[in-house]
Amino acid sequence: MALIVQKYGGTSVGTVERIEAVAERVQAAHDAGDQLVVVVSAMSGETNRLIELAHAVAPQPDPREYDVLVATGEQVTIALLAMALNRRGCPARSYTGHQVHILTDGAHTKARILDIDEARVRADLDAGRVVVVAGFQGVDEHGNITTLGRGGSDTTAVALAAALKADECQIFTDVDGVYTTDPRVEPHARRLDRITFEEMLEMASLGSKVLQIRAVEFAGKYNVPLRVLSSFEDGPGTLISYEEGDMEKPVISGIAFNRDEAQLSIRGVPDKPGVAFHILGPVGAANIEIDMIIQNIGADGTTDFTFTVHRNDFDKARAILEKTAAELGAREVTGDDKIVKLSLVGVGMRSHAGIASKMFETLANEGINIRMISTSEIKISVVVDEKYLELGVRSLHAAFGLEQEEAG
Amino acid sequence: MALIVQKYGGTSVGTVERIEAVAERVQAAHDAGDQLVVVVSAMSGETNRLIELAHAVAPQPDPREYDVLVATGEQVTIALLAMALNRRGCPARSYTGHQVHILTDGAHTKARILDIDEARVRADLDAGRVVVVAGFQGVDEHGNITTLGRGGSDTTAVALAAALKADECQIFTDVDGVYTTDPRVEPHARRLDRITFEEMLEMASLGSKVLQIRAVEFAGKYNVPLRVLSSFEDGPGTLISYEEGDMEKPVISGIAFNRDEAQLSIRGVPDKPGVAFHILGPVGAANIEIDMIIQNIGADGTTDFTFTVHRNDFDKARAILEKTAAELGAREVTGDDKIVKLSLVGVGMRSHAGIASKMFETLANEGINIRMISTSEIKISVVVDEKYLELGVRSLHAAFGLEQEEAG
Repeated sequence: MALIVQKYGGTSVGTVERIEAVAERVQAAHDAGDQLVVVVSAMSGETNRLIELAHAVAPQPDPREYDVLVATGEQVTIALLAMALNRRGCPARSYTGHQVHILTDGAHTKARILDIDEARVRADLDAGRVVVVAGFQGVDEHGNITTLGRGGSDTTAVALAAALKADECQIFTDVDGVYTTDPRVEPHARRLDRITFEEMLEMASLGSKVLQIRAVEFAGKYNVPLRVLSSFEDGPGTLISYEEGDMEKPVISGIAFNRDEAQLSIRGVPDKPGVAFHILGPVGAANIEIDMIIQNIGADGTTDFTFTVHRNDFDKARAILEKTAAELGAREVTGDDKIVKLSLVGVGMRSHAGIASKMFETLANEGINIRMISTSEIKISVVVDEKYLELGVRSLHAAFGLEQEEAG
Repeated sequence: MALIVQKYGGTSVGTVERIEAVAERVQAAHDAGDQLVVVVSAMSGETNRLIELAHAVAPQPDPREYDVLVATGEQVTIALLAMALNRRGCPARSYTGHQVHILTDGAHTKARILDIDEARVRADLDAGRVVVVAGFQGVDEHGNITTLGRGGSDTTAVALAAALKADECQIFTDVDGVYTTDPRVEPHARRLDRITFEEMLEMASLGSKVLQIRAVEFAGKYNVPLRVLSSFEDGPGTLISYEEGDMEKPVISGIAFNRDEAQLSIRGVPDKPGVAFHILGPVGAANIEIDMIIQNIGADGTTDFTFTVHRNDFDKARAILEKTAAELGAREVTGDDKIVKLSLVGVGMRSHAGIASKMFETLANEGINIRMISTSEIKISVVVDEKYLELGVRSLHAAFGLEQEEAG
């Protein structure tokens, strides 16, 4: 008998029919003998409807009241799912974040979970009931309703799994697992049976938006095995867990990419201590997130800085940089908002040499010019012209044999 | 500085615009120096939408989960109203029944309030905030969400007013007060400035559905002055309170009527002890509510029973009665579902003789035949043919001078 936490997102519970399908799946697992905690999101469209109501009343709604409002979305779903289960003869009880006491800090609309009182859940499980919990919400120490921010239902599921020491946390979504790359770009992309937390974090932050990053971090921190599955078709999905020592891991797990990048350079900056902060500080202060950063020292005592930002922030960042350039006496500011980032991800890089050179060779053979390079323990990222996105992904996918069946 | 509890029903908060209008009214009272607790219902239509969702999932939804579901309706309204108030610079905080700890019994969908922890509300009031509370809902001792059943928001308001020892509980609705009779039947009907709890109970139970009976009972029990007002226009409304000794009360306060009555008679029943229970027991057991009951002893040792039921229950009650008649050897069963009940209501009856005979004389003068009579301390009811409803109400309204301005 396993204790499983399942999470179904808004699309998976978007209609009464889909809620019935979820109930059927939950009942099957319950009948097979598993103990089940089911975390659900608001029915798709419901949260947006509530947000529209809020904005009709106040352009900048009070955050405390905003949370009271949007928390109703998941509350509707838990009640409907518990009703559907009870009607099928599968005993079930629903709980709001408040009721199951998902204690968070008081940061309304983006609260963080501090603690979960699992006693009530365990009592229901021991009584043979399915426990249905509202995702995305909690309660602060003063009894105020809080929400975890968009996508927070994944975090709720992982936090419950950690508190209950569940055997597995299953995230049901509209894809059937994590792929070697986006199948819309590379039709030969293959579903991975397994991937490590670290790889998943690199994949997620680089644009493979299957899971919320915070949920993956959380799962890694508390060692909760995570499984991504389709709520529309059966299949094993992808298990995300820690690397197992004796497992024959493929060198590369996948290729992530990000279309929405833009590159900015400031050239010929007189090199002095503190110059990096002088350049990047104002950009960060304007709430612009900086991704890759590269600095080259020139021969003439000046230095060149290049970094990437989200394409939406390009104009704003460029204006800030022009001002900084004038202050520092830099030679010029250049930029390009028609670039993309490609990344090879794989824990196998740690023990395998030559991955980077094979990557660069592959791209060179296709005539793809590399504009920036950045590396980490388990990732190599390159910035290339936007027009090379598909060609780059497909040639790397083939070069690293990702369409093959896994060896182990 | 007065402490006022205001309650706004579903129609009064049915759109974003109406919520704004409520916010404006609340802010005006707050600015005038009153402490305000505002109880709101779900936006009109919302509860029905949720009930439809429930029935799409389960024909007979689990009552616990039903309450979790429909409680979201009021939660949406409290958040929106609190947002609207905060945006206007009127500090406000919303509370669900769970949060403000409206403790009820565990009778899901028709729970009764046991206790209210007023400390949290009072702390907010003392801090100068408007407190917005979800009507219709509470929490049982185990932390389960409960609802008070339809119309229960009135009860929430009165219970809060009682717990807080409020100066007045104001029920805002779509009528501007309690009238001497239904203005759709008698255009000369007049709004009453005052009415007693007892009169209001008789008026409400007889069909003037301005307030929920339970709320009026509750208000009477805890001596909470209730005021019925229009949420769409200004005006003093009608104050419902205890009779004041030195007040020159009119003899009759109003004329209530009930269109949906049906009459059943069982005649020539051999009279034995227990015969009343034998006749009425099976009707009650079939969940049919019995209103007026009359028994006449005949000269031949038999007795005649006549009673009224809701018109919808007429056929069912008649079938039960036919069966009972056969068992008891009664002579016949007769019935009529084209009757109505008219009632004069007024605490002045206690000290004024001749009200009944004046009523009967008035009806006789119009050629209206009386089929049943029933009297209580402050009420005289008659059953007449349905076709005499308007004529009966208007002639009594005129005969008792109800269109006049009040003397006191």
